[in-house]
Amino acid sequence: MTLSGTYLDTLRRKINHRLGEIYPQGPRLLTEPVHYALAGKGKRLRPILTLLTNQACGGKEADALHAAVAVELLHNFTLVHDDIMDQDHTRHGQTTVHTKWDDGVGVLAGDAMFIIALMELRLSSDNVEDLTKAFANGALAVCEGQALDKEFETRSRVTLDEYMQMIDLKTGLMLGLAAELGAICASAGQEQIEGVRRFGCLMGRAFQVQDDLLEIFSDARTMGKSLGSDLLADKKTYLMIAALDKVPDQVQATVETARIDLEPGLASMRRILEDNGIRQLAEETIHRNIAEAKSQLTSLGQNAATLEAFAELILNREK
Amino acid sequence: MTLSGTYLDTLRRKINHRLGEIYPQGPRLLTEPVHYALAGKGKRLRPILTLLTNQACGGKEADALHAAVAVELLHNFTLVHDDIMDQDHTRHGQTTVHTKWDDGVGVLAGDAMFIIALMELRLSSDNVEDLTKAFANGALAVCEGQALDKEFETRSRVTLDEYMQMIDLKTGLMLGLAAELGAICASAGQEQIEGVRRFGCLMGRAFQVQDDLLEIFSDARTMGKSLGSDLLADKKTYLMIAALDKVPDQVQATVETARIDLEPGLASMRRILEDNGIRQLAEETIHRNIAEAKSQLTSLGQNAATLEAFAELILNREK
Repeated sequence: MTLSGTYLDTLRRKINHRLGEIYPQGPRLLTEPVHYALAGKGKRLRPILTLLTNQACGGKEADALHAAVAVELLHNFTLVHDDIMDQDHTRHGQTTVHTKWDDGVGVLAGDAMFIIALMELRLSSDNVEDLTKAFANGALAVCEGQALDKEFETRSRVTLDEYMQMIDLKTGLMLGLAAELGAICASAGQEQIEGVRRFGCLMGRAFQVQDDLLEIFSDARTMGKSLGSDLLADKKTYLMIAALDKVPDQVQATVETARIDLEPGLASMRRILEDNGIRQLAEETIHRNIAEAKSQLTSLGQNAATLEAFAELILNREK
Repeated sequence: MTLSGTYLDTLRRKINHRLGEIYPQGPRLLTEPVHYALAGKGKRLRPILTLLTNQACGGKEADALHAAVAVELLHNFTLVHDDIMDQDHTRHGQTTVHTKWDDGVGVLAGDAMFIIALMELRLSSDNVEDLTKAFANGALAVCEGQALDKEFETRSRVTLDEYMQMIDLKTGLMLGLAAELGAICASAGQEQIEGVRRFGCLMGRAFQVQDDLLEIFSDARTMGKSLGSDLLADKKTYLMIAALDKVPDQVQATVETARIDLEPGLASMRRILEDNGIRQLAEETIHRNIAEAKSQLTSLGQNAATLEAFAELILNREK
């Protein structure tokens, strides 16, 4: 089964419509940055996953919409705060909240988005207890992943295992949560809830490694975002860690080159990753995790098809 | 009835003990700043209010301890984030989190504290639904109050009414929430819950105006914290707004003086507030709100006595 672009667009429209309705009244210094952040060009992959999982578990779409929107709010809360931490000034081509206003407004708007996410989740008609518990656990995991990520920035050596543990927390558990909430909204059994949660986590892993890969090898991406700054900031990514592990001297020399002249530095880094099989290693890791993700869905029977198609879609994205 | 200092110390010890137990494991970049922030010299007035309210509504202390600790965590979450927004470097004589680490760690530690507060609240044995709902509403109000406060900083004129609306959100509703949660934990009726919530809000109002008053007139306070910086930053407080309303030219001249030489500026500001009856106005506002707060407690009958004593205690604090 494939997921049609039209169908995904329909889901996206419903999510965006509800996102436009939330928090209509409040101090302007909150309502404006909150809605500005939500109007960004995100693909809404997480709330779509919530809706698809809900459907795969036999739920009705209307029952899961609040949870889906809550996940997107939670995701955007982390983006707004992450952008402050990393002092990033654009995201998806849009000026970040703390840049458009200031750091204080960014902190505050993020806080409000988290609380609004919690309120939105609790508009769900059933299973509010279980939803809230899963939501809090997932949110804390994201903070922990972010803390580890920050810790890694100051360390000269990080192992691939440590890196995977960090992205499980920072990226994986958010997708795991998105899927889990969809299943809970469908009043699925424990086995199905656990299965889709693991499916989401493994997809999240694949997603992050692929993000690291695209960051270096997709021209569209490198033009849009600043691989350069990641490279110069010695940002730990799957590919950089693997490269540092295998050919530390070459990587170090390339980072030096990039500091002087970015373009040749990037080209040289790509060659290193190709020549030492690191690009291939990353691609294998993505495929292995997607395959493992799919294998978590047996309890869904035929209904697993849409989620499998969603995994393929992620696997084949280009930017 | 009076509240003995020994009894309050006992409550404080129990609260501090539980605060020491929370979040024992996680990335060091989170556990350390979280526990550092919680080890500050706060008076724990909010969680004590939760415990006293619970008791006044016939609840058992053990039932309300998690909610009390959740309120203190929520309060500290706001302090850690506020300190980033205001770029304050000390609080209660302790270096602030974002100063000891950095802004990113401050943002993240605050986020984690909010989530842990939610988790702690949900360890309560009963009424978890109502507790969570009240908690989310209270938390959003605090953000809104903070947003208004920030908005006021950039405005040349703020009326006393607007200021009271802001402190109701920023300070009042947090004390209202503290009291409300205690009553909910005691499974109190709607009338009592509403009564103690209003009691807390009105106390919070009195508390903030008194804080503004002590900020200028208590020597202990002006030595410990930086009234100077508030004055120089044109920070809107109850007294400054009332003074600007009555004698704008004198206030402006005094702020200029303080910018050149702080001590004479402060002395002159105190004289202005005394001579124009603004100190008296603030004192009357405090007393009126405390009296109004007490009048909300009729549904508690004799059990109102401890809460009334608590209000007196706040009224008589000196720093």
